[in-house]
Amino acid sequence: MNVVPISETTPPAPAPLDVWSYEDHALDLDLRWWAAANYLTVGQIYLRENALLREPLRLEHIKPRLLGHWGTSPGLSMIYALINRVIRETHTDWLYVTGPGHGGPALVAAGWLEGTYSEIYPHVGDDAAGVRTLFRQFSSPGGVPSHVSVQTPGSIHEGGELGYALVHAAGAAFDNPELTVACVVGDGEAETGPLSGSWRLPAFLNARRDGAVLPILHVNGYKIAGPTLLGRSSDDNIVSYLRGQGWDPTIVAGDDPREVFPALYGALRGAQARIESMRHEARSGGSPTAQAPWPAIVLRTPKGWTGPDVVDGVQVQGTFRAHQVPLAGLAENPEHLRMLEEWLRSYAPETLFDEHGRLVPELRALAPEGDKRMSATPHANGGRVREDLPAIDLATYEVAIEAPGRLRVSNTFSSGELMRDLYAATTKPDGGGTFRLFSPDETASNRLQAVFDVTDRCFVGQVLDTDDHLGHDGRVMEVLSEHLCQGWLEGYTLTGRHGVFATYEAFAMVSASMAVQHVKWLQHAQELPWRESVSSLNVLLTSTCWRNDHNGFSHQGPGLIDAMLPLSPGVVRVWLPPDANSTLSIMDHCLRSTDHVNLIVVDKQQHLQYLTLEEAHRHCATGAGVWEWAGNCPEDEQPDIVLACAGDVPTQEALAAAELLRDHVPDLKVRFVNVVDLMALLPENDHPHGYADSQFDDLFTPDKHVVFAFHGYPRAVHQLIHGRSNPGRFHVRGFSEQGTTTTPFDMVVLNRMSRYHLAQEVLRRASRRPDGWDELRRLCAHRLAEHERYIREHLEDLPDIAGWTWRAAEV
Amino acid sequence: MNVVPISETTPPAPAPLDVWSYEDHALDLDLRWWAAANYLTVGQIYLRENALLREPLRLEHIKPRLLGHWGTSPGLSMIYALINRVIRETHTDWLYVTGPGHGGPALVAAGWLEGTYSEIYPHVGDDAAGVRTLFRQFSSPGGVPSHVSVQTPGSIHEGGELGYALVHAAGAAFDNPELTVACVVGDGEAETGPLSGSWRLPAFLNARRDGAVLPILHVNGYKIAGPTLLGRSSDDNIVSYLRGQGWDPTIVAGDDPREVFPALYGALRGAQARIESMRHEARSGGSPTAQAPWPAIVLRTPKGWTGPDVVDGVQVQGTFRAHQVPLAGLAENPEHLRMLEEWLRSYAPETLFDEHGRLVPELRALAPEGDKRMSATPHANGGRVREDLPAIDLATYEVAIEAPGRLRVSNTFSSGELMRDLYAATTKPDGGGTFRLFSPDETASNRLQAVFDVTDRCFVGQVLDTDDHLGHDGRVMEVLSEHLCQGWLEGYTLTGRHGVFATYEAFAMVSASMAVQHVKWLQHAQELPWRESVSSLNVLLTSTCWRNDHNGFSHQGPGLIDAMLPLSPGVVRVWLPPDANSTLSIMDHCLRSTDHVNLIVVDKQQHLQYLTLEEAHRHCATGAGVWEWAGNCPEDEQPDIVLACAGDVPTQEALAAAELLRDHVPDLKVRFVNVVDLMALLPENDHPHGYADSQFDDLFTPDKHVVFAFHGYPRAVHQLIHGRSNPGRFHVRGFSEQGTTTTPFDMVVLNRMSRYHLAQEVLRRASRRPDGWDELRRLCAHRLAEHERYIREHLEDLPDIAGWTWRAAEV
Repeated sequence: MNVVPISETTPPAPAPLDVWSYEDHALDLDLRWWAAANYLTVGQIYLRENALLREPLRLEHIKPRLLGHWGTSPGLSMIYALINRVIRETHTDWLYVTGPGHGGPALVAAGWLEGTYSEIYPHVGDDAAGVRTLFRQFSSPGGVPSHVSVQTPGSIHEGGELGYALVHAAGAAFDNPELTVACVVGDGEAETGPLSGSWRLPAFLNARRDGAVLPILHVNGYKIAGPTLLGRSSDDNIVSYLRGQGWDPTIVAGDDPREVFPALYGALRGAQARIESMRHEARSGGSPTAQAPWPAIVLRTPKGWTGPDVVDGVQVQGTFRAHQVPLAGLAENPEHLRMLEEWLRSYAPETLFDEHGRLVPELRALAPEGDKRMSATPHANGGRVREDLPAIDLATYEVAIEAPGRLRVSNTFSSGELMRDLYAATTKPDGGGTFRLFSPDETASNRLQAVFDVTDRCFVGQVLDTDDHLGHDGRVMEVLSEHLCQGWLEGYTLTGRHGVFATYEAFAMVSASMAVQHVKWLQHAQELPWRESVSSLNVLLTSTCWRNDHNGFSHQGPGLIDAMLPLSPGVVRVWLPPDANSTLSIMDHCLRSTDHVNLIVVDKQQHLQYLTLEEAHRHCATGAGVWEWAGNCPEDEQPDIVLACAGDVPTQEALAAAELLRDHVPDLKVRFVNVVDLMALLPENDHPHGYADSQFDDLFTPDKHVVFAFHGYPRAVHQLIHGRSNPGRFHVRGFSEQGTTTTPFDMVVLNRMSRYHLAQEVLRRASRRPDGWDELRRLCAHRLAEHERYIREHLEDLPDIAGWTWRAAEV
Repeated sequence: MNVVPISETTPPAPAPLDVWSYEDHALDLDLRWWAAANYLTVGQIYLRENALLREPLRLEHIKPRLLGHWGTSPGLSMIYALINRVIRETHTDWLYVTGPGHGGPALVAAGWLEGTYSEIYPHVGDDAAGVRTLFRQFSSPGGVPSHVSVQTPGSIHEGGELGYALVHAAGAAFDNPELTVACVVGDGEAETGPLSGSWRLPAFLNARRDGAVLPILHVNGYKIAGPTLLGRSSDDNIVSYLRGQGWDPTIVAGDDPREVFPALYGALRGAQARIESMRHEARSGGSPTAQAPWPAIVLRTPKGWTGPDVVDGVQVQGTFRAHQVPLAGLAENPEHLRMLEEWLRSYAPETLFDEHGRLVPELRALAPEGDKRMSATPHANGGRVREDLPAIDLATYEVAIEAPGRLRVSNTFSSGELMRDLYAATTKPDGGGTFRLFSPDETASNRLQAVFDVTDRCFVGQVLDTDDHLGHDGRVMEVLSEHLCQGWLEGYTLTGRHGVFATYEAFAMVSASMAVQHVKWLQHAQELPWRESVSSLNVLLTSTCWRNDHNGFSHQGPGLIDAMLPLSPGVVRVWLPPDANSTLSIMDHCLRSTDHVNLIVVDKQQHLQYLTLEEAHRHCATGAGVWEWAGNCPEDEQPDIVLACAGDVPTQEALAAAELLRDHVPDLKVRFVNVVDLMALLPENDHPHGYADSQFDDLFTPDKHVVFAFHGYPRAVHQLIHGRSNPGRFHVRGFSEQGTTTTPFDMVVLNRMSRYHLAQEVLRRASRRPDGWDELRRLCAHRLAEHERYIREHLEDLPDIAGWTWRAAEV
C-alpha cells in the first residue's frame, strides 16, 4: 500500500493573514454586531425591565437573582460574528459547537440576532417586547436554562458537563462531506480527560468523505477560581501539543478588538481555504491518504472582555473574577448599578436597535440566509436531515432453531451481519454513509466482525500489510476510549445519522456520565416541537460480567443498568435478549427507534439458542412471556411457583433449574417466565413499556413466590417492582459482585445464581413439599459441594465450561 | 512574585547515554534475569506440569484453557530488571505502576524472582514445587487473576480498566519526597481520555516536597486487534506532544536486546540523575519555583518480543496477534506444541534455575534488598506507612444550636475548617504532609475555603499577583478533571495518606467507573491478610441536585448513589447528613475510617441547622433516629403514620410538612424519622450497618405507612428495603429527574417532594381522617396552585428562596 503517515507529510504553507480582504467597513459592522450580542448577553444576565435602556437604569430594572456566565461570552460572540462573515463570503455550511456551554446567553443572543429565535419561539419577538421577554426568560423558572442547551437553536451540545465538545463535533463531521464544524474548546474544558483524549481526531477524519472540524481553542486563562493550565502555557507549548496530534494551529491573540477581529477573520478564512484544498485533494482521486494536518485556531483573549475592568479596586476583566456575574450586590451598592449602566451603554444600544427595538437593517444583513444560519442549520436539528434506514429482511440472519436449547452460537454474530448489510445499504458514492459502528478496539472481540466484509477499521495514517481490515476509507470506528466512541456516536445521531456503540459491559461505566447527559438532552428535546426526532443512542453491552471469567473482577460489572434505570422513562430502554434471534430482533428495533437510549445487554460468546426469529419478534414486542415448554404447568392452571429470568446466562441457568425440577419434583407446578424488556417490570404509570398491574399479575401471578435469575445486580429488580402486589415474594439472584478469573460455571456458583441455587430457592419457597423434594435438595447440595471440591483440587484443570453445559435434550 | 513558568526555563542538557557504565557482565546478568521473567510468564500462561521443562513437552503438560496476555509482558519485565539495577546502584526508593495491567504474569514473575511472592504467599515456594504452583494458580479458579491486581505484591494499580496509571502514580508521588514512581503507560491506554488528561502532571508536581513520576510510555504498537495511535505516530510527534505538557522525553527504541538494554539503562540512570538534581535545586532553597521539565522515557519495542515470530505463515511478533496467547490450539496442532517448547527452551531454563528449581544465586542477587524491592515496597502496601490523623477537637467548629431550625449556615463550611486544621496538623518541615483536598476548581465554590488560611491551590507554573491563593507550595489540588482529582486521591490513600475528593454531585458520575473499580480493589484487599488497611476514599458530593437551580438540568443528578449501592457492603458507605454539625461528625468519622468508599452527600449552601454536635454524633453513630421534637407522637405511643427523610433539603421539606400536619391535623400522630446512614436501611445480613428487622420496625413501625423524602432517586430506597416487613407501605419522594434553571422551591415542587406534596401524601395514606384533614388538603392544593401561577406570571421575579423558607418558630 502506498500511504504516508500524517507525520511525514509537509503541511501546505498557511496563507498569510492579510491575504483575505477585511475592510474597515466590514470590521465596523462586525464590531457593532458583536456589541449587539454582548449587550443582549449582559441584558439576559441582569435586566428584567428597561431592556433597551431607554431610560436611566434603576434598581427595579434589575433581576432579583443574577444568574449566568459573562466571562466566556464575548469570545463566543466574536467567533460567531466572524464565522457568519465567512459563511456569507464562501457559501459554506457551518455548525457551531460551544464547548464552554455556560456561555449560553451569547448563543441565545446570536440566535435572536439572526432571527431564528423568534421563528422558533414566536413568543420572543424580534422587537423591543421580544428583547424584554428574551431577558426575562433567561435562567428563570419556566424560561430557558443558563447553558447552551437543547432549547438553544443551533446546538447539538450542552456543554454543562465539560469535556465532550470535540467528540460531538467529530461525530457531526463524520460522513458530512460539505460541513465545517467550528468547535470552541474552553481552556477549562481542555483540562478534562475526555477532551484531552479527543484531540486525536485527525487519525480518524478522512477529507474524502467527512466534513471538517475546526477546533478553536479559546484560551481566556481562567476557570471559576483559578488559572487554566493552558492559560499559563506558552504558545510554543500549546502549538507543540497540538502539532503532535495532527493539527496545524494558528495563534490569534490580543485585547484590542480592532486587531483581534481581522486576525481571527484571517485565521478562519485561512482554515476554510485549507479545508477546501484538503477536500479537493482527497476527492480528486490523487493521493487521498496522504493527509496534511488539519487547521486549528488558538485564540487568546481576555476573560470577560469588554466588561467591567476593575471593581472595588480589584481587577476583574482578564481574571477568574469575570467568570460569572462581574458586578453583584447592586441593591447594596449604587456604584455597581452605575457601572452596570455604563457597561451596558458602552455598547451604544441606541445605534444597534431601531425605535421598535429591532436590530438595525445593516446588522440584520450580517446573518447568513435561511438554513445557512448556524442557529438554523438542519445539522443541529438532525431529525430534519435524518433518513430512515432501509428495510432489511432479518430472515437472512436467522439462526435456525429446530428445538430450543440444542444449538450453541454467538449471541451477537448475526447482529454483526445485520450491521454489515446496513453499512452496505447506506454507503454513498463518495464512500460516506449514514450508519457507523463505534467500539473501543473490540469489534472482532465482540463477534461483530461480519462488518469487515464490507468496510475496514478507520485509520487515517500509516497502514501496514500486516494490519487486519484497517484503512483510510474504513468506517468502523475503533479507538481505545469509551468516551470517544460514545461521544462520536452522540454527535453522529444528533446530526441525523444512525449507529451503535458496542463495548465491554463493565467499561460502559467509563462513559456512564455521558449516557446520563444524553438521556437528559433527549428528555428535554422531546418537549420541544421544533426539535425533530433523531435516531436512538444504541449501546450494545457485551463481553458481560458472567463471561468475563478470563479477564477477572475489574471486567465484571453490570452497573450501567442501575445508572440508567432512574432516568427519564420517555428515553431509557433496557433490553436483555436471551439468544441470537432475540438480539437480532431487538437490535433492528433499536436501530429504527428514535429519541431513546437503548441498552442492549447480551454476551458475545456461544450460547444456547431458544427462539425462532418469529418467536423472538413476538417475545420482544411483548417484553416478557411464559415459556410453556420450559415450565411444568399447563397454561390454564395456576402454578405453585414462578421461575423467572432475564439475560442470556440467567436464562440458561433457569432452564437447567427448571429441568431439574421437572425431573425430580414433577408434581410441583412451575411456570417459566422470560423477561426481555426490563422496563416491562415498572408500573404502567412509570414507564411507557410498564405492564399494567393485571398484565403483571397474569404473568407472575398475584401472590405466588417468584424466583428470579437476573443478569445484573439483584436489587435493580426490587426497585422496579415496587408498587406491585406483594413485592416481597420476589427472590432475585443475580450478579452480587463476586468475581475473579475463573470458569463460567464457577461465576454463577460464586454469585449463587447457578441452576442448583435456583432449584434450592424454588424448593425453599414452595408452599408444599412434593415427592422428590428431599432428593432434589440433596442433589443440589451435593453438586455444589462437588464443584467446591473440584475447584479446590483441580485448579487450572477445569475445562472451559465444566459442569455448565445444558441441552434441553428432552424438550 | 519572582517566578518563571515551566515553558520559559531551559531544560538541563540530558546526560549522554553512555555516561552510565553498563558493563557486558551486567548486561548478561540482566538478560538472564529477563529470560527467567519471560520464562515464568510463558509458563504461567501455558503450563500445568513439567514446569521447569525437565522432560520433553507433551500435551498433557498444557493447561486446558489458555488465559493471559503475552504481548506487553516482555517489555514490562525488561523495565523492571533495569530499574532493579538502578535501585541497587543508587539506593533509591522506587514504586512500579503497571499501566498495561493485563501483563499480570510479568509482575507476578518479578515478585517471585525477588522472593517477595514466597514470603507473602508461603504456599508458593521459591523452588520447583513453587514454580509449579505459581503456574497452576495463574488465571485459575481459586488462584490469582490474570491482571496486575490487588493480589500482586508491589501493586497499587490493577490496570484492568485502562486509563488511570499516571494519576495513581501521581497520587503516590505527592508528599513522598524520596520516592520515584516508574509508571509504565501502555500505548493502548494512552488513547483513553483519563490518561490523556493526566499528562498535565508537571503543573502539579513540586520537586521540593513531592517525589517523582517517571512515565515510561511503552509503544509496542498494537492493541487487541489493531495498531495504536502512538504506534503509528512519528517520534517527532510524540516528543512534541509530551514536551508541550512539561516533559522532556528520551526515546529508546529497538528490537535487539543487547542494544535496547543499555539504552534503557542509560535513560533510567539519566532520568534518576535529573530527578536528583531537580530535587537538590528545589530543596536547597535556591529558586524552587523555576522547575525544569520532568524526564520521561518513550520505549519502542516489539509487541510479544522474544515470543513466536511467525505462526502458520502469519507474522505474530511485533503485531496485534501477539496480544494474548500467540500459540493456540495446541491439542489440534502438534507444530504449535513444538514451537511452544522451542520458545520456552529459548530462555534456557536449565541455566536459570538450579536443581531444586530455585533461581540461581547470581540472578537472586539482582534483587534489591528487603523493602527496596519494588514488589515489597511499603509504599505499595500503604497501611504499612500510614499514620493516623491527629485527634482534633471538633467542638471548635461546632455550629451553636439554640433550638432546631432557626439558624441558617452553609452545611460544608465547618468541615472546611476541620480540613484546614488537618492540613496544619499534618504538614511536615519540608512543606509536604499527609492530608490533601482534591477538587475540580471548586474548593471555594463548595465552601471549603477555610483551607486557604493555611495553604494555597497547587500550581507549579507562573503565578500572578491577581491570582487567589495560588502557589507552587500550595497543597490543595484543583484541576478541572474529576478523573485526575479522584485518581490522585486513590493513589494518595493507597500509599498510606489521607484525603477528600470534593465535587459537584452530578459530575461525580464522570469518575463513577473509577469509584466502582476502587471499591473492587478494597473489597479484595480486605481478603488479603498481608494488605494493611489504608484510609478510605472520601467523596464529598456537594452542590447537589436540589440546589443546582442556577446551573440547570445537566448539573442535577444524584446517580452516584445508585451506582454505589450494589457494590461490596464491606466497602461502600453512603451518608446523608441533614446539617452542618452532622456533616462535621461524619466527615471526621470518614477521615479516620479505613478501607471504605464513603459518599458524603450534603449541599454547600446555607441550610437550617438542627442538631448540636453532641446530638449529631449520637444521631450519626446510630445511623437513623426519631426526632421527637419534630413529630407529633409521644415516644411510647405507636404513630398513625411515619414521616421520614434523608438529606438536607428533604429534611427541611419534611420538617415543614410535619409542621403543617401538627398545625392542621393535630390529632394525627406523626412520627418523624431522619436517616443519616443510608446503609442502615439494608437488612443486617446484607450490610454491616444494616438494621436488624426488629430495629427497623422499632423505627418505622412494622406496618404503618411511611412517607419518605429522599435526597436521591426514589427507587434507590425501594431497592434497599426489599426484605423488610411490608415494603409496599413505603412511599418515597425524591429527585425524579425533573430540573432546569429555576428556584430552589420550584425544584422541590417539580419533583413532587415539596412540603405540600409530602403533607398530601401523608393525608392520602393516613388510615383515618382526623379533624382538619380536608382543610389541610385544600391548603396544600391551594399553595401549589399559587406557586404554579406565580411561576407563570412572574418568571424572573421570584426571589431566591420564595415560598421556601421554614423556621421551626414554635419548637
